[in-house]
Parts: sequence; structure tokens; C-alpha cells
Amino acid sequence: MAGTATVTSSTREKLERARNAARTLAQLSTDQKNHLLLEMADALEAHMPEILRANEADVKHANLSGALLDRLLLTPERVREMAKAIRDVAALPDPVGEVLEAWTRPNGLNIRKIRVPLGLVGIVYESRPNVTVDAAVLAFKSGNAVVLRGGKEAARSNHALAGVLAAVPGVPSGAIELLESSTRETVQELITARGLVDVVIPRGGLELISHVIEHATVPVIETGAGNCHIFVDESADLDMASRIVLNAKTQRPSVCNAAEKLLVHAAIASEFIPIIVRELTVAGVEVRGDAATVRLATDVKPATEQDWGEEYLRLCIAIRVVFSLDEAIEHINHYSTKHSEAIITANEDHARKFLRLIDSAAVYWNASTRFTDGGEFGFGAEMGVSTQKLHCRGPFALRELTSTKYEIIGNGQVRG
Amino acid sequence: MAGTATVTSSTREKLERARNAARTLAQLSTDQKNHLLLEMADALEAHMPEILRANEADVKHANLSGALLDRLLLTPERVREMAKAIRDVAALPDPVGEVLEAWTRPNGLNIRKIRVPLGLVGIVYESRPNVTVDAAVLAFKSGNAVVLRGGKEAARSNHALAGVLAAVPGVPSGAIELLESSTRETVQELITARGLVDVVIPRGGLELISHVIEHATVPVIETGAGNCHIFVDESADLDMASRIVLNAKTQRPSVCNAAEKLLVHAAIASEFIPIIVRELTVAGVEVRGDAATVRLATDVKPATEQDWGEEYLRLCIAIRVVFSLDEAIEHINHYSTKHSEAIITANEDHARKFLRLIDSAAVYWNASTRFTDGGEFGFGAEMGVSTQKLHCRGPFALRELTSTKYEIIGNGQVRG
Repeated sequence: MAGTATVTSSTREKLERARNAARTLAQLSTDQKNHLLLEMADALEAHMPEILRANEADVKHANLSGALLDRLLLTPERVREMAKAIRDVAALPDPVGEVLEAWTRPNGLNIRKIRVPLGLVGIVYESRPNVTVDAAVLAFKSGNAVVLRGGKEAARSNHALAGVLAAVPGVPSGAIELLESSTRETVQELITARGLVDVVIPRGGLELISHVIEHATVPVIETGAGNCHIFVDESADLDMASRIVLNAKTQRPSVCNAAEKLLVHAAIASEFIPIIVRELTVAGVEVRGDAATVRLATDVKPATEQDWGEEYLRLCIAIRVVFSLDEAIEHINHYSTKHSEAIITANEDHARKFLRLIDSAAVYWNASTRFTDGGEFGFGAEMGVSTQKLHCRGPFALRELTSTKYEIIGNGQVRG
Repeated sequence: MAGTATVTSSTREKLERARNAARTLAQLSTDQKNHLLLEMADALEAHMPEILRANEADVKHANLSGALLDRLLLTPERVREMAKAIRDVAALPDPVGEVLEAWTRPNGLNIRKIRVPLGLVGIVYESRPNVTVDAAVLAFKSGNAVVLRGGKEAARSNHALAGVLAAVPGVPSGAIELLESSTRETVQELITARGLVDVVIPRGGLELISHVIEHATVPVIETGAGNCHIFVDESADLDMASRIVLNAKTQRPSVCNAAEKLLVHAAIASEFIPIIVRELTVAGVEVRGDAATVRLATDVKPATEQDWGEEYLRLCIAIRVVFSLDEAIEHINHYSTKHSEAIITANEDHARKFLRLIDSAAVYWNASTRFTDGGEFGFGAEMGVSTQKLHCRGPFALRELTSTKYEIIGNGQVRG
């Protein structure tokens, strides 16, 4: 398999090769990129046996079980899904080259603001091999080179997947680079390579993200941690509230847009809390709560201060009774990770105030927080969910993997 | 004077007060903000004597001369210019609340992407007291709280200026905070205050910017260093080329968009270099050059490798002869700080290729690099010139001091 020649290179050499590839990629036409993406999709399916063999070796070596094993595991169906995802990306509009604004100054200077690729994008992630493919093709479609640094549990799978993509004839050498050393030094070299790397995107748990933010000197797009809240207001339709809370908590508890906290207005607490605690408990959810919640329902453990700030990422929820919309808003703005929050209410004024005052990437009225997702928003793909305010906020994909550039045309203008 | 009550607070207390102010500021209407801005402009003029007294004390204490003194010095005229600049900002459109996109998903979810303030903006700068006013009012107009940390030479001036602005009745307490300690620890507290500060913008020299980038854990907008190039192609109108080179180098040599390097196509080198070297020398510019340039003109010192990467910020230029457009592009992309570069040519194909392949924030055809400026671009103001690719690139002002937020309205949708 091609692509493996890079294994012996130093990190610096790989970054420089990727930097050079970025110049070539920025100039590829949309048709050229789409053609190569479709070839990548075919290549993944054609190389299915060796991809599965590599993954099998990873799985054997890692000795995991449950959710962790599930994250690492590849099956023929999952590889076919990856190929389909690539074809979907090929079908999306190309953001590069878009003229965002154009105007002429009184002195005759003609200024155009044009969308260009970021250049070289670094991705630091954990054990999900599908991130290798997702990140590589989103970067490729938006005209960027990518340097991937995945978790060591998935090393063989990532090597196989990145190798297949990079080896497609016509893909510039260095366009998809994989850093295969599992030492922390490799991450450090990547996230401090100013002048070579334009942005680093960490994808994974809080510890990984914090490490990257703490030590990076290249710009970072912070993704993911979601301590998401649902506030059930006094006027809420309680059936709707139950459905939304159960969905947001249990439909996929391990992801960042799952609900972690439930605030209930005191006026309906004695009616709603016993019902929702029972439904959550039946669904296998561990319920914690403040003193009021503990009094109103059975099987509720007292929540500690730590609970209010924690992202459980599992079947656990903490419930708190609040006495007003303002108290709910204050609690959320204090404890949330600014990812996704929802209000369930029939009171439009309350809803509008909540939408306006909650300082999070996505704020919902009468819907589940689970919709904060590039696919669900209709973007056709997703690189991650940004929880910072700079560059992009919320689910992001192709357009957010670009920058802009000013082209200015004159006829001899000088500044007076 | 009010505003001085903050002097004894710790950095942390000031950041928390500013964070709270940010919540209030985000909800002010455009009219409320504009009214307060006009009051700030009046207050600066009304407090002119004490502002000038404070500045006089700074000047006396600093014992500077020449350009450094000029940066620090305030005069009645300069204070009036500051007041005028505030009135200009009041007249600019308010970016906050703009609905950037709105759409409905097949499941009925209604999604709106809305422009919101960043929140709390930190500014780290040097000895120019006008930055205190510029940064404070741009942040204010875009609905942000601001924490200012200026250089110690201007401490009394900044205290007076920020105090006058913050004391205007109706300005929320904490909206404009000044960190008055001159220790490095204060900067460190500011640039690592994750959860309180949303972005830090360093404004000043390379050392300051590097320090912030190296040590910040909050997101940074990198500004300013400009090793700007002009390439005079073989088909250039040489009179135009001379005018542009002289303007870009000498009109204001201490700023980031001044030209620092000149590349000349070999085909016209023997004609153009003697002329431009003479004109530059007459204008007081120290000329350095590669071997070819040294041979073609008198009074040219040999340039070293270090010259090609250096931002002189003074009347000095380095000239190099190149044998093709490609060589010029390669040299620029290797050595430039990605700020502003220009090609002077009559060949449209060459111009288009240069515009496309040069990886800088602003790329010019037949115009001076000195136009890379918020005012010259028609933005009405400028917070700085971003040389990074994330969030914004090139001159930036009000709009770039905002983020976005998704508001999603449903009627009970859950994810299947």
C-alpha cells in the first residue's frame, strides 16, 4: 500500500510536506477535488480486507469492551458507511473561491474578499478510526492539507485508512499525513508548529481538549464538551417535556449534545418531578437531585456541587428545582459549557428571553438538545461542534475550514 | 473622577466584574449604545485638562524622545481627534442582532444564526494611549465588555482616559476595565482566564504579540507584524513602480503595512534598480540588496539571510533580483508574515497568478501596500490587522468583534 513511505519521516518533515501540499490543494478545481473524493470512496471499499485486518489487530491489542470497543471497531458495514460519507462530501458545495464581498473605494481601488482554504489543518483525536476519514475528506474538499494524530489504540486502523486515501492517484503527496508516533512530543510538535500549521482541532474528551488548549501556540478550534441543560418552565406541556428530556438524555448518552442537567420550575415540580424521575429510572438513568428533588421523588441521590458542572456522558442526570426563569438562566450561564440548552415552555416571552440571554452555541425552544449536529442542521457533514466564540460556534463543517483573503486591484494608487 | 474605584481590585475581581457587565452590554439597544458613545466623546473633551495633566506626568516620567515620545504624547488636538473617532464609531452600523441565516428543516425545526457579541475582550498593548479609547469604544459598540492592559509608560494617561469613559452615567459598571498593575503576572492572569475572557487581542510589537501567543490559553487574534513585499515585474510601468515603492516604504515607515522588501524582475533590473535605489537614498532610506543589486547600484549594503525575514519598521529596505514570477511568489510565501504584498505589472495573467498564489491577508495589483487599513478599506474604524487565518484576516473592526449563536425553535421535536 502506498502512503506508508511517510512512516519513517520525522514530524517536522511531515508537516513541511503537508504545508507544500496545501499550496497545491488550494489551487485544485472543485471538479478535481470531487473526482479524487469519489476515487477515495471507491478505494476504501476496494481495500476493505486489509482495513478490517488492521482494525482486527487493533481490537485484539487494545483489549477493550463495551462502548470503548464499539468506538474502535470497524465492520464491513461501517467501512461502507465511511465510503458513503465521502461521496456525500463530494456532493456538497465547494466553499473555496466564493466572493464574499466586492466594492470600489472612492480612490478607485477595487477590493474583493474571497474565501480561501485555511491551509494546513491539524487534528488531534482519540480512538475512533472514522474520524481519520471524516477529517481527511472534509479538509480535502475545503482545499486544505491535513495532519492527523489519532489515538494509539487505533494506530493500525488509522494507518490503513489514511494510507488508502493518500495513495489515490492524483492526491498530492503530503495532502493527508498521519503522525504515527504515540508520544506526547509528537502532539507538542504539531500544536506548536507556527508558520506550518494554521489551525489545530482537538476531537475527543475533555482531557485531550484541555491539553491542546493549554499547550498549543497555533490557533485552536475548541470542540465538544457539553454540559447541556433543559429547563422545564411552569407553562410547559409536561408530556412534551418528558419526551424531550428522555430523548435528550437517553437516545445517545455518550455524545456532547446529550442533556446532563434538568431544571424544573417550582410551580410544576411536585407534579413533573415524580413522573420524569420514574421515566428516567425505568430507562436506566441514574438520577441525582437537589434537596427539593430528593423530597419529591424516590430513588434520587443528593447531587453535590460538582454534579452541576460535570459532563456525565452516560446514563446519569442531575435535577434542580428553580423558582423563576431568571434563576434558570443564571444557573445555566454559570455552569454550562456553552454548548446546547433548551427551554420547554408555552410562554413565548419566556422562550424569547431564554433564547436571548442564554450564552450558548445552540439554544432551543421546545426541542431536544440532540439536534446540535452538522447533519441535523442540514450542513451535510460535521467536523465538530465549536464551543468557543472565535471563528465559528456550534456545528461546523466545510465553510468553517476556510479563511478569507483580500484581493485589491488598482492603477497606481498610493496613500496620501 | 469615577472609574478609579477599580484601582484596588484584584485582576480576578476586575475580570469577573467585566464578565457581568458583558451580559448587560449584550442586551443594550443600538440607540442606547450610540447615546452612551456620544456622551463618552463629550466627556473626553470636558475632561481635557486632567487628561493632558496625566499625560504630561507620563511624558516627564518616561523620558523618551523621537518616535517613542510621539507615540505617548497627547495634545488638545489629539484628544479632540479621539472624541471625533468615538462619534464616528457611534455612526457606524451595529453588527449585533443581525440574522445571518434562517432556515427550516424537514422536521419543522426553525434555525436562525444570529450575530452576538463575543462577550469579554482583552486588549494587551503598549504605549499609545489612543489605543485605550479606540479599543474601548469598538468593544462597546459591538456589545462587548473590555479589559485593557496598556504599557506602563502610559499608565497615568490610560487611567485618566479609561476613567472618563467608564464614568459616563449609564455605562454599566465593569464595561471598561483597566488593569493597572505593570507586572507580567497581570498579563498572565488576563490571557489565561478561560471562562471569563472570550478573546485576547495583542496590539504592539513582535515581542508583545509573541508573548501573548506563547502564553495565552484563551483564543487570540494575532495582529500586525508586516514584512511586506513589492514585486516589480518585467512589464511594470516603472514610473508607477517607483511611486508605489517610495510611498509604501517612506510614507509612514513605522507601521505594519509599510513595504520592507522589493523584488525586481531580472529583465528590468539594470534599468529599474539604479533609479529606485537613487530615489530611495534621496528619501533617506538605507538600501540593502542581494549580489545583483549591489552590482547594479551604488550605496547598497549586502543583505544577509536575516534581512529577508526582518520587519524593519524604519527607513530601510532590502532589494532582490528574481528571474521569474514563480521565483517572486516562492520567495514571498517563504519569507513574508502574510500581511500585505503587491505586484506591479502590466501583465494581467501574472497579476491574477500573483493574487491567487500569494498566501497573505491582502494582495495588491498596482497599488501601495499602505492601504491595508480599516479606514482605507472603508470600515470606518479598525481594531487591528489580523495576520492569522482563523476568525478574521486583514483589517478588522466591529463585525469581527462578534460571534454567532444558533436559536432553534421547535414544537416538541426529538431525535430518532
